[in-house]
Amino acid sequence: MSIPAFDSTAVSRLTRTDFEDAARSIAQDAVLTPMLPHFQDGNFQGIHLKAENLQPLGSFKIRGAAHVAGQVGTMGSGRIATASMGNFAQGLALAARRRGLGLTVHVPENAARIKVAALHRLGANVVEHSFDAWWQIMATRDTGADDGLFVHPVCEQAVIAGNGSIGLEIAAQLPDVATVVVPFGGGGLVCGIALALRACGHRARVVAVEVETAAPLAAARSHGEPTDVARQTSFVDGIGSTRVLAPMWPLLNALVDEVAVVTLDEVRAAMRAAMLGNHLLIEGAAGAALAAAARWSGSSSVCAVISGGNIDPDVHAAEVRALGGA
Amino acid sequence: MSIPAFDSTAVSRLTRTDFEDAARSIAQDAVLTPMLPHFQDGNFQGIHLKAENLQPLGSFKIRGAAHVAGQVGTMGSGRIATASMGNFAQGLALAARRRGLGLTVHVPENAARIKVAALHRLGANVVEHSFDAWWQIMATRDTGADDGLFVHPVCEQAVIAGNGSIGLEIAAQLPDVATVVVPFGGGGLVCGIALALRACGHRARVVAVEVETAAPLAAARSHGEPTDVARQTSFVDGIGSTRVLAPMWPLLNALVDEVAVVTLDEVRAAMRAAMLGNHLLIEGAAGAALAAAARWSGSSSVCAVISGGNIDPDVHAAEVRALGGA
Repeated sequence: MSIPAFDSTAVSRLTRTDFEDAARSIAQDAVLTPMLPHFQDGNFQGIHLKAENLQPLGSFKIRGAAHVAGQVGTMGSGRIATASMGNFAQGLALAARRRGLGLTVHVPENAARIKVAALHRLGANVVEHSFDAWWQIMATRDTGADDGLFVHPVCEQAVIAGNGSIGLEIAAQLPDVATVVVPFGGGGLVCGIALALRACGHRARVVAVEVETAAPLAAARSHGEPTDVARQTSFVDGIGSTRVLAPMWPLLNALVDEVAVVTLDEVRAAMRAAMLGNHLLIEGAAGAALAAAARWSGSSSVCAVISGGNIDPDVHAAEVRALGGA
Repeated sequence: MSIPAFDSTAVSRLTRTDFEDAARSIAQDAVLTPMLPHFQDGNFQGIHLKAENLQPLGSFKIRGAAHVAGQVGTMGSGRIATASMGNFAQGLALAARRRGLGLTVHVPENAARIKVAALHRLGANVVEHSFDAWWQIMATRDTGADDGLFVHPVCEQAVIAGNGSIGLEIAAQLPDVATVVVPFGGGGLVCGIALALRACGHRARVVAVEVETAAPLAAARSHGEPTDVARQTSFVDGIGSTRVLAPMWPLLNALVDEVAVVTLDEVRAAMRAAMLGNHLLIEGAAGAALAAAARWSGSSSVCAVISGGNIDPDVHAAEVRALGGA
């Protein structure tokens, strides 16, 4: 018994009903997050924040994790496994615990200790690997052990369907939205949202956002296919890999209307604006979306997807202070 | 033409329909704020946050302000006046601008400059008075000028009805809530919420929260009537006056089930917990509600009303650092 292999064509055919089913299946796990008007100095320029940093565990990832856990539960398996740096796995651990499923998480040895500790607290079994061995699991879906159905954190139909529930909510909360701006990490979030918007007949422009320190999607678009890019580490740790995952490329190529690349200082300014204007702690990836949203604001409604809030408040404060060399 | 004088008996008879009408009248001004499960270190103890800090201008006050502005609009007056330290007036200015109403705000000369500047930016006419002259306006509702219908920030039926829309949302979002914990400033918030809960047949315990540096409601309850109390200034500036307003006492006496008084360190810890657990910047008054909520958590559902987020992020960080003398 196994989850069907990832098939981007099948994913591209997800229907409105599929996304509605996903939304129902995660209703006990995820919050219906608000769509918040974003004021700067008392002025409103048409930007709204879809505040996924308010989810349990601080990011949208609970949605896909809960939906896949629910599907596995109905398949009769009592055990699941995943490979993750930690964020997706935390969501899966919370959702699995709620459903009485056993979970094994395969992590690279450089995974953040705080995330590994959180996984233990949530009752998951954690197995560490060298980075190369871990990457092999991500590429092959083979953990080398009989530890249950394997769930991929990105290339997984049910995960993308769960993420898509955000698209349904955007269409309902902001029906006249002209542009939806989404951080690009692995592509599961932007594809899920774009597919759900299209499935309910919505024509909003979908913009994927990267940060200047690592922009593999912009490179893939100029190149015509995924290609390696350089990557500098920064406080923006939720997005920015060195290459677009091959199985995601057909979806990304078809669904993303534009790619925006923002600077670290634009991200810092956006993090500051979300704190002052909306009283929200948002992480760098989410700040990138808000920063890019300003490029489409003014006459029409823009939605910035605030993917998460998992940044140390002291790091947040230091980055905001670093803005403009102050 | 004038708004009827404040009559606490009439207020106590507000019906579910009145609150539903209020909710409808402010739908374009206020956000339907989420009810967020509050996790601490991955554990959930039954506490939920009604996140009114996510409202435009960062507090619940937009609700009452928008509802009263809407009512004045239907009375055919093009001009309104209020007396306020600035928070309520900002909400009223935003709501009045949207409805094409002229607004004059009477402020004491010690009102925060940042709030006065915000009022100007929102298009209000601002008149400054000595504190004593300003207090006279608050007590008599007479501004000494022909500047339109006078709207009181606390003792005003439509303001309380607007605040009550929060109670309807709590009843819908968390039907099994056993305890609702609300910061006590002037009483308009806790009375509005309690009345709306009762109007829809909800039996939740209603707790009003004060901070140790100024607790006039606890004093009024022991004394049997409003009485003067000492007040120390602190970073908790949204609650804590020196005496319960006489017109509010009958309502408070009838509607508040319990009063909780919390320490400044409890408030600091709650502000920190909201930032780490929910990625929310919350002000001291709201922190007081979250701090008190822990006293009723465990077996049953508790809702802490997060009244606002209007605290300077640097002050927030300094207070959190001051916690436990660290």
